[in-house]
Amino acid sequence: MSFPLQLKAYSEPVDARLRQLLPSVETPPTELHAAMRYSCLAPGKRLRPVLCMVAAESVGAEIHSVLDAACAIEMVHCFSLIHDDLPAIDNDDLRRGVPTLHKKYGEAMAILAGDALFALALESLSRSDQMAERVVRAVQILTAASGSGGLVGGEVVDVLSEGKAVDAVTLDFIHQRKTGALIGAACEIGAVLGGADREVSKALHLFGIQIGLAFQIADDILNETSTAEQLGKSAGSDRERQKATYPSLYGLEQSREKAEFAVEGALAGLRSMGIVHPHVEELAYYAIQRLQ
Amino acid sequence: MSFPLQLKAYSEPVDARLRQLLPSVETPPTELHAAMRYSCLAPGKRLRPVLCMVAAESVGAEIHSVLDAACAIEMVHCFSLIHDDLPAIDNDDLRRGVPTLHKKYGEAMAILAGDALFALALESLSRSDQMAERVVRAVQILTAASGSGGLVGGEVVDVLSEGKAVDAVTLDFIHQRKTGALIGAACEIGAVLGGADREVSKALHLFGIQIGLAFQIADDILNETSTAEQLGKSAGSDRERQKATYPSLYGLEQSREKAEFAVEGALAGLRSMGIVHPHVEELAYYAIQRLQ
Repeated sequence: MSFPLQLKAYSEPVDARLRQLLPSVETPPTELHAAMRYSCLAPGKRLRPVLCMVAAESVGAEIHSVLDAACAIEMVHCFSLIHDDLPAIDNDDLRRGVPTLHKKYGEAMAILAGDALFALALESLSRSDQMAERVVRAVQILTAASGSGGLVGGEVVDVLSEGKAVDAVTLDFIHQRKTGALIGAACEIGAVLGGADREVSKALHLFGIQIGLAFQIADDILNETSTAEQLGKSAGSDRERQKATYPSLYGLEQSREKAEFAVEGALAGLRSMGIVHPHVEELAYYAIQRLQ
Repeated sequence: MSFPLQLKAYSEPVDARLRQLLPSVETPPTELHAAMRYSCLAPGKRLRPVLCMVAAESVGAEIHSVLDAACAIEMVHCFSLIHDDLPAIDNDDLRRGVPTLHKKYGEAMAILAGDALFALALESLSRSDQMAERVVRAVQILTAASGSGGLVGGEVVDVLSEGKAVDAVTLDFIHQRKTGALIGAACEIGAVLGGADREVSKALHLFGIQIGLAFQIADDILNETSTAEQLGKSAGSDRERQKATYPSLYGLEQSREKAEFAVEGALAGLRSMGIVHPHVEELAYYAIQRLQ
């Protein structure tokens, strides 16, 4: 199942803008910039930035008004993948169909390129051509979603749980942070920069959290049932490392149901707030259509 | 030479506020928060936050108005030390008189605690109780100073230069970024949040860059001439790793002169802008007094 055609209209400007925001390989330190570009420009679905732009559109804003914020979110995602792939953490060799950054450029460069991408993400967001109050709010949302209460916190518990029996509460703790937090932030930032009020922004935040859950469950299922070639990263690696996953706790069938339930809940929440947009629905269903 | 007594009036509020801003060890993930506090609350001079506060005061602001920004800068410094100490980078065992974070909590936790500190730094800065326009400018300054054009960029060239003959241009490239950028940002952010105009803020930025150079040269000299006990970190380690340093390129005596020259230049620049403050002078001279 490929990324829906209509959504290319969102992901293509993201790719183009990322190319501009990332420093050129001619600018010193050239190796660092080459490493940053290698990771961040590898082909990806750009799910998080697309969600940010679709969220902005769903509240009546132009997608270009949140393009830099969308790119910032993709950079944070990319930074977190680089660090998670490191030998000391998940020790993965393959990512997005190519060798992981530390395999290609060495461990020191991977650590530092991740750090530099994180800095560039926040710098790009803070340079958004938007009202200062909205930019400040967006920075608050993105940093909270990235830190110890979000992305990094989830990864820590994931690492500490390897090889242990994990209960449902811990599994949710991990994924609400590791996946949900950034996807929730992507949607909320799109809403905030798009001019939505607090209530609508929070509704889109919750939508993102639920969609994030659906994507994570789907990824867990695909990690079980696909080949490395299909995934562009190591397959079956979760099970080998005895990682906590939805299929390992609930089985494949119940995991699939949980993902569908999350998507329906996410869309119902938005509809109840009067937020209806065809691309929002399409993106939400894309999470689970990949499983068919 | 201990940190000047009068400056305790600046560093003590920083320590107290850092304790509040860092998540409690009771908040999950508890191991992560313990690791963040272990590194960030280890006794330090708090040079960068003190410079931020003194810069704010030199433009007529209250030091408490920049306290959260000052803490943010210390967190960025701390994050960069944690990552630089990692086995894949400098592989240091001792920092601020205690084992480095990866020695104490393992490599995965050190990578992730560094990441979380960086996120918390930007979150704390973005939550500063200040005009939104000034906060946005401060975020731009801090992220630019941290990324591939600043701190991280300098570290990359430092790593790539190990064991190689390094010329004066490369040595300056490394240290203007690795040390100068963040100290320059600390002073500029103090000025910006303190309400200074662009010209005064830039003057304080330049002051910080020059003071940063003086501190770096002094640190290089002390690394050559002190014991680990005096330093609180490994002594002579630069030479062992054949690292590019000012003494290795210019010799001890000429390095000392370079440091003094940088301090005098820094203070002359401020005086020419009419910025005169006793604590600014005291901090500037502290850089080189350590060498006597």
